[in-house]
Parts: sequence; C-alpha cells; structure tokens
Amino acid sequence: MTQQGTLGVAVIGTGRMGADHVRRIDEVVGGARVAAVVDIDGDRAKGIADRLDGATAYTDPAAAMDADDVDAVLIASPGPAHEAALLEALDRDLPVLCEKPLTPDAGSALRVLEAETRLGHRRVQVGFMRRYDAEYMRLKSLLDAGDFGRTLMLHCRHRNVSTPPGFTEQMMINDSVVHEIDATRWLLDQEITAVTVLKPTPSSAAPGALSDPQFVLFETSGGAVVDVEIFVNCGFGYQVRCEAVGERGTALIGDAHGLTVNAAGRWGGEIAPDFRQRFEEAYDREVRHWVDATRRGLVEGPSVWDGYAAAVVCEAGVRAQAAGTRVAVELPDRPSLYR
Amino acid sequence: MTQQGTLGVAVIGTGRMGADHVRRIDEVVGGARVAAVVDIDGDRAKGIADRLDGATAYTDPAAAMDADDVDAVLIASPGPAHEAALLEALDRDLPVLCEKPLTPDAGSALRVLEAETRLGHRRVQVGFMRRYDAEYMRLKSLLDAGDFGRTLMLHCRHRNVSTPPGFTEQMMINDSVVHEIDATRWLLDQEITAVTVLKPTPSSAAPGALSDPQFVLFETSGGAVVDVEIFVNCGFGYQVRCEAVGERGTALIGDAHGLTVNAAGRWGGEIAPDFRQRFEEAYDREVRHWVDATRRGLVEGPSVWDGYAAAVVCEAGVRAQAAGTRVAVELPDRPSLYR
Amino acid sequence: MTQQGTLGVAVIGTGRMGADHVRRIDEVVGGARVAAVVDIDGDRAKGIADRLDGATAYTDPAAAMDADDVDAVLIASPGPAHEAALLEALDRDLPVLCEKPLTPDAGSALRVLEAETRLGHRRVQVGFMRRYDAEYMRLKSLLDAGDFGRTLMLHCRHRNVSTPPGFTEQMMINDSVVHEIDATRWLLDQEITAVTVLKPTPSSAAPGALSDPQFVLFETSGGAVVDVEIFVNCGFGYQVRCEAVGERGTALIGDAHGLTVNAAGRWGGEIAPDFRQRFEEAYDREVRHWVDATRRGLVEGPSVWDGYAAAVVCEAGVRAQAAGTRVAVELPDRPSLYR
Amino acid sequence: MTQQGTLGVAVIGTGRMGADHVRRIDEVVGGARVAAVVDIDGDRAKGIADRLDGATAYTDPAAAMDADDVDAVLIASPGPAHEAALLEALDRDLPVLCEKPLTPDAGSALRVLEAETRLGHRRVQVGFMRRYDAEYMRLKSLLDAGDFGRTLMLHCRHRNVSTPPGFTEQMMINDSVVHEIDATRWLLDQEITAVTVLKPTPSSAAPGALSDPQFVLFETSGGAVVDVEIFVNCGFGYQVRCEAVGERGTALIGDAHGLTVNAAGRWGGEIAPDFRQRFEEAYDREVRHWVDATRRGLVEGPSVWDGYAAAVVCEAGVRAQAAGTRVAVELPDRPSLYR
Repeated sequence: MTQQGTLGVAVIGTGRMGADHVRRIDEVVGGARVAAVVDIDGDRAKGIADRLDGATAYTDPAAAMDADDVDAVLIASPGPAHEAALLEALDRDLPVLCEKPLTPDAGSALRVLEAETRLGHRRVQVGFMRRYDAEYMRLKSLLDAGDFGRTLMLHCRHRNVSTPPGFTEQMMINDSVVHEIDATRWLLDQEITAVTVLKPTPSSAAPGALSDPQFVLFETSGGAVVDVEIFVNCGFGYQVRCEAVGERGTALIGDAHGLTVNAAGRWGGEIAPDFRQRFEEAYDREVRHWVDATRRGLVEGPSVWDGYAAAVVCEAGVRAQAAGTRVAVELPDRPSLYR
Repeated sequence: MTQQGTLGVAVIGTGRMGADHVRRIDEVVGGARVAAVVDIDGDRAKGIADRLDGATAYTDPAAAMDADDVDAVLIASPGPAHEAALLEALDRDLPVLCEKPLTPDAGSALRVLEAETRLGHRRVQVGFMRRYDAEYMRLKSLLDAGDFGRTLMLHCRHRNVSTPPGFTEQMMINDSVVHEIDATRWLLDQEITAVTVLKPTPSSAAPGALSDPQFVLFETSGGAVVDVEIFVNCGFGYQVRCEAVGERGTALIGDAHGLTVNAAGRWGGEIAPDFRQRFEEAYDREVRHWVDATRRGLVEGPSVWDGYAAAVVCEAGVRAQAAGTRVAVELPDRPSLYR
Repeated sequence: MTQQGTLGVAVIGTGRMGADHVRRIDEVVGGARVAAVVDIDGDRAKGIADRLDGATAYTDPAAAMDADDVDAVLIASPGPAHEAALLEALDRDLPVLCEKPLTPDAGSALRVLEAETRLGHRRVQVGFMRRYDAEYMRLKSLLDAGDFGRTLMLHCRHRNVSTPPGFTEQMMINDSVVHEIDATRWLLDQEITAVTVLKPTPSSAAPGALSDPQFVLFETSGGAVVDVEIFVNCGFGYQVRCEAVGERGTALIGDAHGLTVNAAGRWGGEIAPDFRQRFEEAYDREVRHWVDATRRGLVEGPSVWDGYAAAVVCEAGVRAQAAGTRVAVELPDRPSLYR
Repeated sequence: MTQQGTLGVAVIGTGRMGADHVRRIDEVVGGARVAAVVDIDGDRAKGIADRLDGATAYTDPAAAMDADDVDAVLIASPGPAHEAALLEALDRDLPVLCEKPLTPDAGSALRVLEAETRLGHRRVQVGFMRRYDAEYMRLKSLLDAGDFGRTLMLHCRHRNVSTPPGFTEQMMINDSVVHEIDATRWLLDQEITAVTVLKPTPSSAAPGALSDPQFVLFETSGGAVVDVEIFVNCGFGYQVRCEAVGERGTALIGDAHGLTVNAAGRWGGEIAPDFRQRFEEAYDREVRHWVDATRRGLVEGPSVWDGYAAAVVCEAGVRAQAAGTRVAVELPDRPSLYR
C-alpha cells in the first residue's frame, strides 16, 4: 500500500459506469485514490487521468496492474472484456471489484471461478450493488432475524422508463432480472432451481418485437416461489420493489418517498427517473465497503460463485423465455472456497 | 310492490351472512323491508322474524316467495341449496340477490343459466360484493377511462388470518380466489382462459396437510397475466390488494389506512382482522344498489353468466392445484342475454 | 309512529344540504321516510315532494310539524331560521336533527338551550357530522382508551379549494373552524378557554381583503393546546387532518388514500375536491344514527349545549381575529341536563 | 495543502460528535485526512491519534493550527470553548467547520462575527447539518423553484424519545429548536422577527419541572408564521418533520419510511431512535461538501451570520418561555460580507 494506507486503484473502462467510479473514488470514498485509468481509447484515458492528481493513463489493463502504485483493480469495462482482466488480476493476486455481470455467459464465468479456486483464496467481489442498498440491507436483516419465520415468497417489481435502441429480450434477463436473481439468492440464501417466463400481450409502447412486460417465476432450493414483473418500457419512472412474505408477516421495500406534495388536486411525489438516483448511495456504499475491506486485507460481498450462479440462472431464463415452459437450473456443487 | 314502493324482501338462510343481511335491510338500507325470514330451522326463522315489524317466518323458500308482501328474494342459504331456490324464484319471475357462489359447481350453475335464458330476461344478481367496494369501483373507473392504456397485468394479494377447522385446499380456490376470479373478469372485461397453481413449501402455521400459501396464475382472453397470492393462514390480518399494471401507469388498491399512529418505536396502524371490517360498506352498497335497481324494475350487477364463468374457472383451478400444471378453461359462447 | 316503525321526517329547508338530506332519507337510510318537505318557496317544496311517495309540501314549518305523519324534524334551512323552527319543535316535544350552526350567534343559541332545559329532556341533536366520520370515530376511541396517556396537543389542518363570492373573514371561524371547535371539545372532552388568531401575509390567491390563511390557537380547560391552519383558498383540494399528540404516542387522521397511482413520473392520488366526497359517509352515518336512536326513543349525539358552546367560542374567535390578541372564552356552568 | 490535495484537518474536541467526525474524515469522506486530534485530555487525544496514520495529538488548539500539515479546522469541542478556537483559526486565516452552536450566546457570537468581518472574507461554516439532509435539500429546491408561490407557513415537529439528566427548559430552545430556527431562516430566506411559546400541561413523562412539550411560534420578516412542536420526552422515537404551506400547494418531509411491515395485526415500520440514524447521511454530506469546497478555496454553507442570528433568536425564545408572551427579535443590519 501507499503511504497512509490509501488504496491505489486502477479503474478499467471509462464508460458511464467507469467514469462514475472514477468520480466516486476521487470525491466520495475515503481511503482510496485513482492511481490508474485504463481504456482502449488512450486519449480518453489520458483526458480523465490528467484531471486527477497522481493518476496515470493506460490502454493495457495488465500494464496498469503492474504499476507500483496500483493496489487494487476496479473493472468497469464492457462485459466481454471482463474475463481477461479478471484472469490478469488473479494472476497478480490483486483485489478486484468487478461490475456485474462477472462475465457475459456461464462458460466464461466458470473459467474465472476455476482460476480463483486454483488461487485458493477469494480476491474478487462482484458488483451486485443492491446488497449495499440501505433498504435491501434492512430487509436482509429482518429476514435473517427470523421473526417472520421462513420466507415463503418474494414479489418483485422492476420497472424502467424505456429501453435504448438495440435492447433485446435476452437483455431483459441478463441486464435487468439478473439483479432479482442475485437478490433472491442473497435474501433467501438459497439457489434458484427453475425458471418460468410468462409473456402478456406486449405494451404498445414496447419497441419493435420486444415482448415487454414479462412475468418471471423462480423456484428455489428451499421451496420458495419468487415472481418478478420486468417492465422496461413502463413510461412513468424507475421502480424496484420487493415484498417478502414470511410465515408470520410480510416486509416491503422500494416505496420510500422522502417528499410528499399536495398540489393541483393531487397528493404524492416524484418517481426516480433511473437507477442512478435510486441506487446512487448503494454504489457509494459498495465501493466504500470494498475499499475498507481491501485495506484490512479482507474480501467480502458477492463472490465469483454468486456471479457464476447468476450467469447459469440467466441462461436458464433466456431459454425459458424462448421455450415458454419451465426450465430447470443445473448448478454444480458449490466449491468449498465459497461456502 | 307494497305501499310507498318499499321492497318486501324474503331472506332465505339465516346463518352469519343471512342474519347480517336481515340486519342490513332492517337498519341500514332504505327502501326495503324484511317481509319473510326463511330457514329450515323454523324456530330460528321465527326468532328472527318476531324481532321485526311485519316479517313472517317460513321453512319453505317457495312458500315465502308466494306471499303477497314478498317482492324480491335474497338467497343466503348454504351453496348446495341455491339451485333450488334460484329455480323457484325464476319460476315466479322474482328479482333475486344470490350470495356467492351462484351454485357449488359449474353443472348446476349451467342449469340456472339455462333457466334464466329460457325466461328471456335477467332476474338474478350474484353477490360478488367487491364490485361494490369503493376502492374497486375507483380502480374500475380508472381502467375503463383508458388513461393508462390497456391493462397488462394484475398483481393480487388475498390474505386471511387463519382458517377454520375443515378448510380444504379446494376451498382456497372456491371460497377465496373466486373473488379474484370475478374481479379479474370484471376489471378487465375478459374471460380467463387458463389457470396454473404453484405451491411454495407450506408455512408451518398451515394446519394439517393444507398447502398454504399458493400462487395462482390466470391468463385471459385479451392476453393479460394475473397473479394471486392466496395465503389463508398468514396470521397477521385480512388483506386484499390489487395492483393493475397498464401500458402507461399502475394503480394499487387495498392499502388505505385511515388512522396512523406513532407509538413505542413504531409508526403504522391496525390491519382489519377479517372481511367484515374490510368489505362492510361494500355489502351495504351492494344491497342498496340491488334494492334501488329492483324498485326501478332493473337488474344490474354480476349476472348468472358471471356466476357460471366463475364456477368453470374454479373447477379448472382445483384441477390445476391437483395436477401441478397449466389447465385451460373451456367456456361455451356467452348467451346473447348476457352480452 | 307510523306503521312498521318507519320514522316520518319533516325536512325544513331545501337548499343544497336540505335537498341532499331528502335524498339521503329517501334512498340511503333505512327506517325513515320523508313525510314533509318545507320551504318558504312553495313551488320548490312541491316540486321535491311530488317526486316522493307520500310526502306533502309545506311553506310553514309549524304546519308540517303538526301533520299526523310527521314524527321528527330535520332542520336544514339557513341559520337565521333555525331558532324559530327549533322552538316550534321543542314546543311539540319533537325530535330534531338541526344542521350546524345551531343558531348564528351565542345569544339565540342560549334561548334554545333555555327552552330545551325548560322542557327537561334532550330533544335536539346538532349536525356536527365529523363525530360520525369513521376516522374521527377511531381517533376518539383511541384517545378514550387511554393507551397514549393524556392528550397534550391537537394539530389540525382545514383546507378548501376556494371560497364563493361574499365569503368573509368571520365565516372562516363561523363556518369552517367551527368544525375544529366541536372536534376539539368532543375529542378532548374539555371546554375551550381562550382563542388566539395569527395572520400570515395572505396568499395572493385570497380574494379581496380576505386574510387567508389564518392560524388559530385554542387553549382548553385541561391545559391542552390546539392549533388550526384554516386555508380556504389553498387551490389544490379539500383536506381535513388532525394529529393528536398524547403523552406516549400520536395519532393522525385525514390522510387515508384509497387508490395509489404511478404515472408520468409521479406516484400519488387524487385529493377530494370538497367536503361532500370527504364526509359523505359521515352524513349518511349521522342521519342513520339519528333515525335509529329516535326510533328507539333516544337522543344522542351533539347536544344543544355543544351547539351553544361552539357559538360562544366562535364569537371569541371572531374577536381574536379582529383584535390580534388572545381572547378568553366565558362559558356559564353546564346545565345538569347536559352533563 | 499536502500532496495530492488531501486536506489535513485538525479535529478539536473528541467527545461523541468529535470522535464521530474523526471516523467520518478517516473512513467516509474522500479528499481529507485527520492530521491533528485535539483534546484537553491529552491521553484521550493520543489514544485516538495513535489509531490513525499520520495524525498527531495536541491539547492546545492553537498548537495544532500551527502545524504544517494542518490545512483546516473542525471544531467539535463543548460550546463554551468555541469562541477561543474560532478566533485562533480566524487569526491564522484557516477554514473552519464549527459544530453548532457557533457560541453559547449572542454576545460571544457577535465577537466572532466582528472578527470574521475584520478579516474581510468568510472562513467559517457552522454545523447546521439539516441543510445537508437529502429531504431538506429537496424541500428547499421545491420552495426556491416557486411552483407553489410564496411560502405562507411552516408546521414543524421535533420529537425526542427522552432527555438526559440535567436537561433544562432553556435547552429545549438552545439545543433543539435552534435547528428549526436555522431551517426556518434558510428555507424562507427571511429573518425571524418574533417568538411566542405556549406550554400545554406537561406530559407526566417529563422529568422534574421540565414543561414538556412546548409549542413555539415564529413570525418572520416576510410575514410567514412558523409553528414548532418541541416534545423531548415523547417516548416513542425521534421525529423531525416539516410541512411547508405555499400559496398553491404544500410539501412535507420527515415521513420517509424505507421498510414497511405487516405483522401481528399491524402495518407500519420502525421509527429512528435518535438523530444519528435520521441525520447520519446529512453529517456525511455536510463534511464532504466542506472538504470539497475548502479544497477548491471556497467557503459555503451556513455562515457566522447564521450562527449569530440563531443565537439572537434563541435568546428571544428563552425569554418568551419565561415571560409567556410574544417577544420581538432585534437583529442589527446584516453586514455586507454576509449578503
């Protein structure tokens, strides 16, 4: 580590998420600094690095990881670039925070899993940031406390205003529902064993052939049933809700409203326009926890196993979308490293 | 009609619902009076009739219907007695309000349907009282106004504190979910075309072999998907919720809370213990509308077709419970009388 | 009483409230019928009576009260006509439901009080309908149960969309805040001992010289402090709220929202446009309770003493508006008839 | 500044607030580090400094301010020690974040005001952290946008579970209501011109002679009326609410609830037990903004004038408590430095 224990971070990828993480490490999170900015577009990397004290620009992730002042790696490049960067970081035994998805498919995720397993200790945290959202954290605490008994069902809503051009039906699972996949596994501490997808007649606001909304059902290893409304062109705002139904009570998150207004014949308030408003503090907390744990030599948070299991469930989900039937999820045994 | 246009009503059956309707007609609803009280237990009928001005006790429904001061019939006897009473009333061309279910099965419901169709005009209103609940009425108005576009999904919750002894899995469909069956058909103005039932690992509070809760899925003739959580031993209160998801907005009912309290480290309020508190005003409004319409010579509200369609869907639901698979619903064409 | 115990009611006054009560007795409330319709405009009275079975039109309240089929009187004429009608009804020992205000000033209210006191038993119920609102009733039950200890403060909000032409500053007290005056006395079971009125710089939406909103403070015989925001041109809707602050908890009413909507970037719902939507069921329940009690020979609900005390506090409130200082309320001892 | 622009902060005072700020600068806020820990208890200062990289312990604030690696000062010592530390910092032209109150009384606050005025530029930010609370910030934005017209009234609630031993009536104003004093001045951008205090009969839970709750009224230079319920032994939780009433709408903050539960016959959630839960993020944001602004050479946030004006209003409030009458607030003209 550098003097004062400040963590020198190489940020790989400077798209929307990467640039936001650079700002976060520079301004918001204590105990870390941006030591390297990596992008295949060297001018872009240099433009960002030049605005920071003591940051160097790179086009090659491996070169950045070899720099003396780089203590840890934050991967925010496009998904297909993740596997190579993860393997380079594991080769150097460097701590990593990898934006979700771990990798774009289960096969590549499995190779990362095997590399970390060979290394023999955890080095990678996957960026499922909902685990760091204050409401999800309270829900998790409540369920773990057991006052409501076993959790029997989760009812989830995931709504976006609209989709960008090129958004596909598969992306409804891989980019959107993947958050509910991880939330389900984490909240219940169970694996997902089957996926079914129902498709209502699409909204007329759905672009092209996109069958939007869809209604996704999970069955879990503990016998719970989870339903997810995924509606990515709902038009009115960004909403993520989860109601957990236990044996003796239910708990709902996602309806917190800070400012309530009466005006023009209506009461109510604004709905967040997108995920940045809704989960901004979760991202801050995620990176802060990662920095804190890394400075103490710990690896916490969502693991490579979590990233791999999500990829396997996503593949089953996409098959269920296409087939219109229930698709069972086949997971190998969980390696002892992740138990 | 009797003088002053007051409707003389024969109330058939004096169990909990029947006795409550006697009280309602006597005290709450204007324009009607209890002219006849009918129960196979003659002492019970007489005990109630004696407490009312001008009411006569009967043990035979047909005898009551023949009385001069009886203008209309309210059937609140046990389900298996409905068919006979309905056919007697239709024989006499008398207006009827029949508590749900119309009859206990689709076969007998069809016979009533055929009798009314032969009569050539509607005489029977079925007691699906949710259509008279203020919140459901507002939801129906909102959906019909079309501001939110087509309705794509309904998310329904139906929770009871606990079940009485002898409550069976079939009753979860026939006595409980039947309300969501009618609400779905009414809100969407579509028929239900298939039913699927998922069963989470049961709550430890579920008595005996009752698989409680269950998660019921409807598909409709217009391509909507409807999910119903039915949880009849939730322990904490009676809750009925419905969220309609349209193309441009959603609308939720069932969360109205009149009195909010801060005390002992918590904010919130009481949950209704059972359906009487939640739907008391809906029952009042239902009977008032029936009396008003009848006095004006009209028949409105849920029809025999609605009662028959609900019975057909219930039979499919019970088969879906047992089979664990999707069960298609087969309905004949809707007779012109009910279009 | 007439046959079947149906209460024959003379409705005096056929303005907006009177006509609504005629409809209520005819259609909504069981056990009563409109026997007489009284208005100084005889054509108007006849037009309404002719639409009802067995109702007779009158221009003179006393003549209506003398009719054989009139068992009780509902006074809904303009306030200045109340005293004469009340004294005629008390002369005949007839049960009365008198719309608020009892009379327009404390002097005339005292004369009615003395007349009923001379009669020696209660005959008059005053139309403070909030006591029959379901939320107020729950609040009253909660406070009376004592779980929150003594009630220390009430925070009240009373907002109207706008005022009709001719609405004066005095009417803000006499027509609007009078409801909070009665609610305070009823909820706390204490008398109001002083009134102070603060006037913020008026809203630019306030017509003419009307100083709107105002902030009214009551002190009570038990040492509670009550504040009322009265804002009669708030523009956005009709709202009546009350938060009771007890020693160990608080309870809020007036925020019940039955239908919650997500649309166009906002969550929320509609605000009632005026008092009819908000208190419609309270009016129904008020008249129903009056009819029920009257048929059983009882007099319940707000008494002439309540009407008189409200008038005395209103006079103090109007003086406090004008003086800008605290004005003490002087009430005589409560007669034993009203204890 | 030190290398990399990291701000070296001297934290003066290591009580509950000071220790929390040390943790905040060390772990939560980016761009700053604790360079000096100051406490009259030298062992305590050393114990804390030793746990930090590169922090030095001091017993004398001036000595810490003279250190080369100290760029800025955070004052969290007891109120009576503020004046001396502020004057030392102003002598050295060092940026300061001073916990509220600026000083314990208006006289000493005026001396600080004069010192900064002589210096000729702002150096001090006062710790009124509500201005950094997300809900208050949204409310301020809404009011400033002007959609609801001029703000006519604020209704404020400030409730604490209970008071520690030795809590006095004056502290209800100086320690608690002082937050509403600053919030009123900030939200309305007006000065407070008069204070009135009403005292209901105290709660039986109020210790000793403490007259709790109290109801405080402010009048402002723009003609607004502000009421504050201050109830410091409410027993049930910590609540801070503010409803702003504008000419065309109202806006309420303080009721945000993240997790809603149904259980045991009740719906609702937990109330924060104290201000740390409620305002934790406001403290984080406050210190982060101060660090960011200071690194850019700016002084923003609540000024010494704000601290002084709050002290003057507090003195008027305490006099109003004692006198039972309206007390006018006398403020000198605002120096040009603070316009």
